[in-house]
Amino acid sequence: MTRPFFPAIDHVHMAHALRLAAKGLYTTQPNPRVGCVIARGDTVLGTGWHPRAGQPHAEVFALREAGESARGATAYVTLEPCAHHGRTPPCADALIAAGVGRVVVAVEDPFPKVDGAGIAKLRDAGIDVQVGLMHEAARDLNIGFFSRIERQRPWVRVKLAMSLDGRTALANGESKWITGEAARADVQRLRARSSAILSASGTVLGDDPRLTVRLPGDEAFVPPMRVIVDRLLRTPAGAHVLDDAAPTWLLHAADTPVPAHLKGVRRDTIRTDGDGLDLAAVMHWLARHDVNEVHVEAGPTLCGALLAAGLADELVIYIAPILLGHTGRPLLNLPPLDDMTTRWKLRTMDRRQVGDDMRLTLRPAA
Amino acid sequence: MTRPFFPAIDHVHMAHALRLAAKGLYTTQPNPRVGCVIARGDTVLGTGWHPRAGQPHAEVFALREAGESARGATAYVTLEPCAHHGRTPPCADALIAAGVGRVVVAVEDPFPKVDGAGIAKLRDAGIDVQVGLMHEAARDLNIGFFSRIERQRPWVRVKLAMSLDGRTALANGESKWITGEAARADVQRLRARSSAILSASGTVLGDDPRLTVRLPGDEAFVPPMRVIVDRLLRTPAGAHVLDDAAPTWLLHAADTPVPAHLKGVRRDTIRTDGDGLDLAAVMHWLARHDVNEVHVEAGPTLCGALLAAGLADELVIYIAPILLGHTGRPLLNLPPLDDMTTRWKLRTMDRRQVGDDMRLTLRPAA
Repeated sequence: MTRPFFPAIDHVHMAHALRLAAKGLYTTQPNPRVGCVIARGDTVLGTGWHPRAGQPHAEVFALREAGESARGATAYVTLEPCAHHGRTPPCADALIAAGVGRVVVAVEDPFPKVDGAGIAKLRDAGIDVQVGLMHEAARDLNIGFFSRIERQRPWVRVKLAMSLDGRTALANGESKWITGEAARADVQRLRARSSAILSASGTVLGDDPRLTVRLPGDEAFVPPMRVIVDRLLRTPAGAHVLDDAAPTWLLHAADTPVPAHLKGVRRDTIRTDGDGLDLAAVMHWLARHDVNEVHVEAGPTLCGALLAAGLADELVIYIAPILLGHTGRPLLNLPPLDDMTTRWKLRTMDRRQVGDDMRLTLRPAA
Repeated sequence: MTRPFFPAIDHVHMAHALRLAAKGLYTTQPNPRVGCVIARGDTVLGTGWHPRAGQPHAEVFALREAGESARGATAYVTLEPCAHHGRTPPCADALIAAGVGRVVVAVEDPFPKVDGAGIAKLRDAGIDVQVGLMHEAARDLNIGFFSRIERQRPWVRVKLAMSLDGRTALANGESKWITGEAARADVQRLRARSSAILSASGTVLGDDPRLTVRLPGDEAFVPPMRVIVDRLLRTPAGAHVLDDAAPTWLLHAADTPVPAHLKGVRRDTIRTDGDGLDLAAVMHWLARHDVNEVHVEAGPTLCGALLAAGLADELVIYIAPILLGHTGRPLLNLPPLDDMTTRWKLRTMDRRQVGDDMRLTLRPAA
């Protein structure tokens, strides 16, 4: 697709709108994070972002702030304005009513009810609309939303923590704590931006994690639901994931009898595939349940299976500057390779220090 | 030790002298790398570095270039000038004869025949001598030389190459190539700066490496000797390490019979310690054979044993952005840990990208 040329001042305002949109990182799900700036030349007239599903969209806040000055101004929106009546009236209508002269859109909304209709509506009203400014950053910000709409599955982010020699725990299972406090705090932010945290019954049985979000101070977030891949419904009574800190779903095989202590727990059945649940079906289940980004914290079996099935979109690996030796537990169980040409290749997207640990963000190489 | 205050111009000249010294990185062994700058104010009058054992020291070249202008000038030397007649006359005498007014020394020479005598000789001649400018960088440049003199063992640098999940080879042993071309070229430079390359008979039998230095163009280096820990003298006839590309030593147990094909090979016996050769004794052997830095390229057994014995001073780990899975070969065989408090802690000294791979330089945490 050829993109129009955008002058520098357009980049300034769109970058601003993207920063505003990111304020909704932990709260808009299942909606996308969206920001809006109304400006004339280098003068900002109004700003807004979508804070939470059910609350007004970014454009509404920005238009309110701009008031009459919006007439003839340019609106910068990080996602195509909606054209349909959802829980709020269409933003395209609001922009038209305010009399803006030009709308710059970072990226089209793939949502079937929008999907170009917002842009068409604006153009029909005689507004100059340009699309594509900073579109990669705008897609990245809502990578899970785009994934859910376009692929009918969430963006799957697998979090791993290991020693330098690729071990996640001692032979006896002890893994607290491989990484330091800063890395563990960082993980809370990955959890907070996710719609769901996916784990497996083996992890529940071994580590009894809470899989909740703990952020410092009063930072707002929507608690991600906890989803446990639990074919045989082995999650024990009293497991932390069964507490009421966040909704929890257990996904199991259709022929697994439901033990008494799990009768009152949200459950659903997933078709099996060999020894386990069909992970592609798990992903479709998550998408149907409005999950944009799913954060995986599990053992080498589930994490390895996701990677092997081509379902792991991103790995975030925290590497502690320690060694545990060959008896430690492995990072990922993967099918044995016959030769080096079939190795799993990754692209490094980001590399940074988090406290004493290193954090790598990687995606499977195309 | 309190260090004198040095004005900025002193740092400029000493940094220059250190860069000159580094030109001898691949060639001075077993001598230290030394650089010298003669200057007056910000005017450089002469520069020199020690190129190779048997050739003149850094001070001689710098004084030659400065000629008569050295009189009353300042000499910056990265290592204390020698005071003894070795293969060349004492540099302290040469500085005195040239009439320099001041000598700035980065770090004292620990070599028993020098060890303060050079500085004393200069001071006795009425020269103003100051010691300690950029001493850490000066020690680092000759980290192996200091180790050999002060600890009677070389600086032990263990090179490792692995996948992100800490695997060095497939289950079938295939390991060519985990890392990319840039990383392999970088390893050649680590080899080139070393006095010896240490490996084990298992690696010789499994991979038949050459363990020689290959540098691009006509870059000069002194071929490091190859030293194989080979308790049972298993190195086979025709192994690459037995070719004449560099000297090779086989270290074995005293009670191991010498097979006919190894009769003509340099050999020495080392006392045993449990199942293997005593690695501390191997290190003393290396120091007695004038090894400053030893570069270790071996399997998880020798590398792990060096680390476990506290003999690995530095790990250089190349990490390729690939995954090999739990069936791959481990990075290091280490004694099993009972709890996380006994994990092997490391300090990250350097982290950089080398082609597609990441290179970490780490040292055991104090």
